[in-house]
Amino acid sequence: MPRAFNFSAGPATLPEPVLRQAQEEMLDWHGVGASIVELSHRGPEFMGVAAEAEADLRKLIGVPDDYAVLFTQGGATAQQALIALNFADPGQPADYVISGHWGKTAIKQVKPYVDARIAASSESDGFRTIPDRATWTLSDDAAYVHITANETIHGVEFRDTPDVGAAPLFADFSSSIASEPIDISKYGLIYAGAQKNLGPVGISVVILRRDLLERAGQPRADIFDYRSQLKGESMLNTPPTWNWYLAGLVFKWMLAEGGVEEFARRNARKSALLYSVIDGSGGFYRNEVGPAVRSRMNVPFFLHDEALDKPFLKQASEAGLISLKGHRALGGMRASIYNAMPEEGVQALADFMQGFRKRHG
Amino acid sequence: MPRAFNFSAGPATLPEPVLRQAQEEMLDWHGVGASIVELSHRGPEFMGVAAEAEADLRKLIGVPDDYAVLFTQGGATAQQALIALNFADPGQPADYVISGHWGKTAIKQVKPYVDARIAASSESDGFRTIPDRATWTLSDDAAYVHITANETIHGVEFRDTPDVGAAPLFADFSSSIASEPIDISKYGLIYAGAQKNLGPVGISVVILRRDLLERAGQPRADIFDYRSQLKGESMLNTPPTWNWYLAGLVFKWMLAEGGVEEFARRNARKSALLYSVIDGSGGFYRNEVGPAVRSRMNVPFFLHDEALDKPFLKQASEAGLISLKGHRALGGMRASIYNAMPEEGVQALADFMQGFRKRHG
Repeated sequence: MPRAFNFSAGPATLPEPVLRQAQEEMLDWHGVGASIVELSHRGPEFMGVAAEAEADLRKLIGVPDDYAVLFTQGGATAQQALIALNFADPGQPADYVISGHWGKTAIKQVKPYVDARIAASSESDGFRTIPDRATWTLSDDAAYVHITANETIHGVEFRDTPDVGAAPLFADFSSSIASEPIDISKYGLIYAGAQKNLGPVGISVVILRRDLLERAGQPRADIFDYRSQLKGESMLNTPPTWNWYLAGLVFKWMLAEGGVEEFARRNARKSALLYSVIDGSGGFYRNEVGPAVRSRMNVPFFLHDEALDKPFLKQASEAGLISLKGHRALGGMRASIYNAMPEEGVQALADFMQGFRKRHG
Repeated sequence: MPRAFNFSAGPATLPEPVLRQAQEEMLDWHGVGASIVELSHRGPEFMGVAAEAEADLRKLIGVPDDYAVLFTQGGATAQQALIALNFADPGQPADYVISGHWGKTAIKQVKPYVDARIAASSESDGFRTIPDRATWTLSDDAAYVHITANETIHGVEFRDTPDVGAAPLFADFSSSIASEPIDISKYGLIYAGAQKNLGPVGISVVILRRDLLERAGQPRADIFDYRSQLKGESMLNTPPTWNWYLAGLVFKWMLAEGGVEEFARRNARKSALLYSVIDGSGGFYRNEVGPAVRSRMNVPFFLHDEALDKPFLKQASEAGLISLKGHRALGGMRASIYNAMPEEGVQALADFMQGFRKRHG
C-alpha cells in the first residue's frame, strides 16, 4: 500500500525523504562499498557522520557552548537512572514534578539512589493539568528538580520553563525536543529518546551544562559515567551507528525545512486543528486536558461511546490513517503529530473525524 | 562502487540478502504503509517480529528451555556492569579470567560493585595465549567466573568451555556467538553485542539460566534489573526496534544457510586459509598467537616492515578489500571474518596477501 499517515506515539513516523535516502544508501554509503551500519564507529566515515550530527543538532536547537551533547544508548529511561547516579550524592534529595505517566517512571528509576521527593503532582486530577508553580514544594538541598516537558500518554505539556531557584532544572524532552525554540540555558540538563521528534528509536541525546560534571555523583560503572562518555565522544563502547546516522539525516531535514521556528508554526497549526475538531464536535469527541497545557505533540481523545472505538480505528486504517489507538493506560484514541507528521496528514485526520462523526453521530 | 569485502571488526559486514530485504521494506513493511522502524514496539507487527527473532535465535544456537533470552540496549559493556548488579551481593568476590583487551574492560566495569578478582591473566605474554586452566585461582564464594570467549583485538579464542566448579560461568560471546555449536547449559549466562555475528549494532542479547534471577543482587534502577526486563519482554522501555528487526533477519539468514554447524565448517576453512597464508609467508606476515587458541573470527597480523602497512591498506582497498587496519592498541592489520563474510571474500584476501608479498617481498 502507499505510505499511510502514521500517528504512532513512538517509534513514530519518519520524514519520507530521510527514509528514501537511507534506503538508497543501504548497500553502499557514499561509494565506500559498504553500508554505514557495517563500518567501524572509529573510522573516518562514521566519525564524520557523528560530528556532523552533533554540529547540526547544536545549530537546530541552539545548544550553548558551555553545554555538552551526548549520544547515548538505553533510551530515556536509562538516562532517568543515570542522572541520579551522576549528579546526586547517595541519598541526596531530588525533587520531581509529576504531570503524567512518564514523570512517574522517572521517579521510579531513582528510588535506589536518592531521596526522591514529589514536589508536586497532578495525579489526583488524572493528569489533566500541570501543578501550579506556586504549589510546588522544593527542597533546599535538592540535587536537581525534574520535570517532564511533554507527557505523551496524558497529552499535557509545559508551555513555559518554570523557575526553580538554585537547583538545576532537569527535563525529559523526549516527545517535544526540537518542536519549538527553547532556551536551553534555563536548564541544567535535558534528555530525549530520539524516536519521536529526532528520528529513530535506539539512541538518545543528553544535553548538559558542563559544570555539572564536577559533581562526584555515586559509585557507578565507567559505562554509566557521563564524564567518561563525554571523554570517549559517546563511543565508550560501540554506539548504535545506524540510529545515530538516521538521526543525523533527520536533523539535516529539519534544518532544510526551516528549523525549529518553522516546526513551531506547523505544530501550532496542526494541534489547533485537531483540538478545534474535538471541541467543536458537541461532545462526540472529547479531550479533558486543561486548554493552557494541552500538548502540541500528542492529542489523546475519546469517542462519546466506547463501542465506536473499533469502527473508528478500522475506518481510519482503511483511509490510510494508522496507529491511532490510545495507550492502554488511558484507552480511547491518540494522535501523535510530531515534526515528521505533515500538515496534510493532520488535515486528513481532521476530515476523517468530521466524516465519522456525521456517519455515526 | 560495487560492494567491497569488508573486514571490519564490528560494526561488521552484514549478509547482502539481509540488507536488500531491509532496503526493500524501508518505506513499507509488509504492506502496512510504514517502515517497521516507525511502528509501536507494542503493536502486533513488531511484537511478531520480536517473538520470531527470539524463537529463531533459540533454534539457531540451541537455547535450553530453562534459559531466558533478553534483547537489551547499551551494548555488551553495559551488560558487563549489569551482571554484577544483578547477580552479585555488594562486595562479593567475582572471578575474571583475562585473555585480552575486552576481559580488562569487563573487570573495569564491575569494580564499584564487587570484589573483582583476576583469577588468571595472559597479559604478561601480550595476550598471545589463554592461561592454562590449572593455573586459575578461583574463589570459594565467587558470584560467578567470567571469561571472554573470543578476544577481537588480540585474536585469541577459548576452544573449549572450561570447568569452573560450583560458581556459574559467565561469558562474553560478542564476537563468536553463533559461529559454531556451543553447549549453553555449561554456562550460567552468556551475552553478546549483536554487531559482529548477529547483525546490527545497537542491540545485545543476554541468555541466562532462569534460577539465577532468584539472586537478590544489588540496589539498582528498575531499568537495570534483568527480572524487570524479562517480565517486560525486553520492552521495559522502547527497545531499538530496527536493530532487533535486522538481527531477526540475520537469524533467518543463518538458519537458511544451514545453521551454526554449517557456519562452523565455513569459519574453520576461512580462518585456516588466512593462517596458512600468514604462516607460509616466510616471516613476511606474522601472527604470534598460540596456534591452539587462535581466533576463527579475528585474524590480527603484522607485516614484517611497518613501512609496508600503508601501501598494503591502500592496495587492498583498491582491490575491494576494506577495513583491514588493526586496532590502535596493537597496530598492524586485522581481518575479521564473521559469519557474514563469504568464503570468496577470504579467498580474495588470501590471494591479495600472496600477491602483495610477491610484489614487496
